[in-house]
Amino acid sequence: MLLNLDNITFYQILDFIGTLAFAISGTRLAAAKHFDLFGAYVVGVTTAIGGGTMRDILLNQTPFWMTDPFYLICSAVAVIWVVVFRRHLVRQNNTWFLFDTIGLALFTVVGVEKTLSAGLPMWCAIIMGAMTGAAGGIMRDVLINEVPLIFRKEIYALACVTGGIMFAIGHRIGIDTHLNAIISGLAVIVIRLLAVKYHLALPKLKVEEADEEKDA
Amino acid sequence: MLLNLDNITFYQILDFIGTLAFAISGTRLAAAKHFDLFGAYVVGVTTAIGGGTMRDILLNQTPFWMTDPFYLICSAVAVIWVVVFRRHLVRQNNTWFLFDTIGLALFTVVGVEKTLSAGLPMWCAIIMGAMTGAAGGIMRDVLINEVPLIFRKEIYALACVTGGIMFAIGHRIGIDTHLNAIISGLAVIVIRLLAVKYHLALPKLKVEEADEEKDA
Amino acid sequence: MLLNLDNITFYQILDFIGTLAFAISGTRLAAAKHFDLFGAYVVGVTTAIGGGTMRDILLNQTPFWMTDPFYLICSAVAVIWVVVFRRHLVRQNNTWFLFDTIGLALFTVVGVEKTLSAGLPMWCAIIMGAMTGAAGGIMRDVLINEVPLIFRKEIYALACVTGGIMFAIGHRIGIDTHLNAIISGLAVIVIRLLAVKYHLALPKLKVEEADEEKDA
Repeated sequence: MLLNLDNITFYQILDFIGTLAFAISGTRLAAAKHFDLFGAYVVGVTTAIGGGTMRDILLNQTPFWMTDPFYLICSAVAVIWVVVFRRHLVRQNNTWFLFDTIGLALFTVVGVEKTLSAGLPMWCAIIMGAMTGAAGGIMRDVLINEVPLIFRKEIYALACVTGGIMFAIGHRIGIDTHLNAIISGLAVIVIRLLAVKYHLALPKLKVEEADEEKDA
Repeated sequence: MLLNLDNITFYQILDFIGTLAFAISGTRLAAAKHFDLFGAYVVGVTTAIGGGTMRDILLNQTPFWMTDPFYLICSAVAVIWVVVFRRHLVRQNNTWFLFDTIGLALFTVVGVEKTLSAGLPMWCAIIMGAMTGAAGGIMRDVLINEVPLIFRKEIYALACVTGGIMFAIGHRIGIDTHLNAIISGLAVIVIRLLAVKYHLALPKLKVEEADEEKDA
Repeated sequence: MLLNLDNITFYQILDFIGTLAFAISGTRLAAAKHFDLFGAYVVGVTTAIGGGTMRDILLNQTPFWMTDPFYLICSAVAVIWVVVFRRHLVRQNNTWFLFDTIGLALFTVVGVEKTLSAGLPMWCAIIMGAMTGAAGGIMRDVLINEVPLIFRKEIYALACVTGGIMFAIGHRIGIDTHLNAIISGLAVIVIRLLAVKYHLALPKLKVEEADEEKDA
């Protein structure tokens, strides 16, 4: 039921890898905060499905995980993985970073495609793609009571936005959907890998605040 | 208007008790953070209606409190109660703990029932039941800027999940709905009381993180 | 496209001023937390559209910003403004405070009107008006990991509620909508300005908590 091996697709394998990687990132951060197994599961599942759930609510569609147990099972696998490999997770960092990036690319492209299919304008689809990829991580950080990581580091969101723009343009000019998804997804992956390798980051905002309290 | 005494039901009394207890838990924590009356009300009302609102949004139904002022009035009663009895709240702890548990049981069962009625699968209904019972408390802790309490203590959520599974099975095998609700609700109450009495808790996750920053 | 100057209306100018002021308040607080440009934009946009988005989701309508790029562009203008005028923002405090208050008044009235138009009861419309005005600021503070400011200071929300009650009553007794909106909006502005000028605030709740942990 989890995976029908007769017609398992390339897309489903990527979906599994990405969901697992997102859930593991949430579960690990929850563990670092001494959450119990339930808390770790909730944070993991929120990281994995949070962005897509927000997208589906905004699109007024039934959230994708409510009709397919795949995503909740993936998140349970993530908790088991973290428990079993807890002494080896640091050594697996590069692998999970890559899988996380694959998930980011997939979720972004799915978000753009679903929004365009709902008949919304291109700029809205690009926003929704970035939201699908990045909002789960923001919710994760809100739940563990930390300032969202992606607001301070890396070109994480810029990778989503660039991939989303590419997919939306490809869709407009009529490129085959699968080819378009692969090209745009690879763009997300390449941009993020380059950003991390060369420590590229957006400039930070600096303001002078003599009286922060005044402006509510 | 709040309570039509001609046909006030057992269910309505439980609903009042549970809503009041949830709102009081939010109001007290807000007061401990020196919130003003308005802030205390918002936190109280979020604790009381947050879980059910999330459920109704996911089910694409009008949130239950938008057509019946009962829940917002209950939350106002909670603020008044906290103001009037502020020196006696600690002595009332056991009572409010019991009422809070009654609310947890009721909200869980209502959440499972409503989701099954919407035609969604059993496993989804169990998740939605736990969400109805527990998400309000998570939102409360996000608003007061604390790590959600239920991620670190007690079998709170496990009680919801067990009660939800019992109700869903009873529903499947055709037990009378009222009887089913009472049995499942009592299971939630008993599990939580036992968990607190014997200090039962889920194990905490422990991981070794040499480099937490890498895994965004 | 942003502003069609042929039929630009008084309402659109107010909408621009209010959205800009809300977004700037979010962007400034994000900058004070050393967020990067993307993070500052997300916090700004959340402050500007968060309340109305929550309202539209609860009303089961397509969120207002998904069909009109105006609001996302406004928020980008806010980030540019903060970058360009970063050394002069403190001197602009009074102006932005006034614009923020205009936004609060407008968003409150729009929220009440939209909810009444959806056929919901008056008390619900008043709540939704206050939510439209105030929820964006709460989300902003959750994102920057601070206790929401409006829970501790000023008559911010009380101004929304009063203006909302006035608009709902005016609507019931049949006052012309535009006149009603102007009167109610002015009430919000006057109440907030007076509250800040005379340091009016709601009383804080005080409770004695010997054992905060017990009450989950």
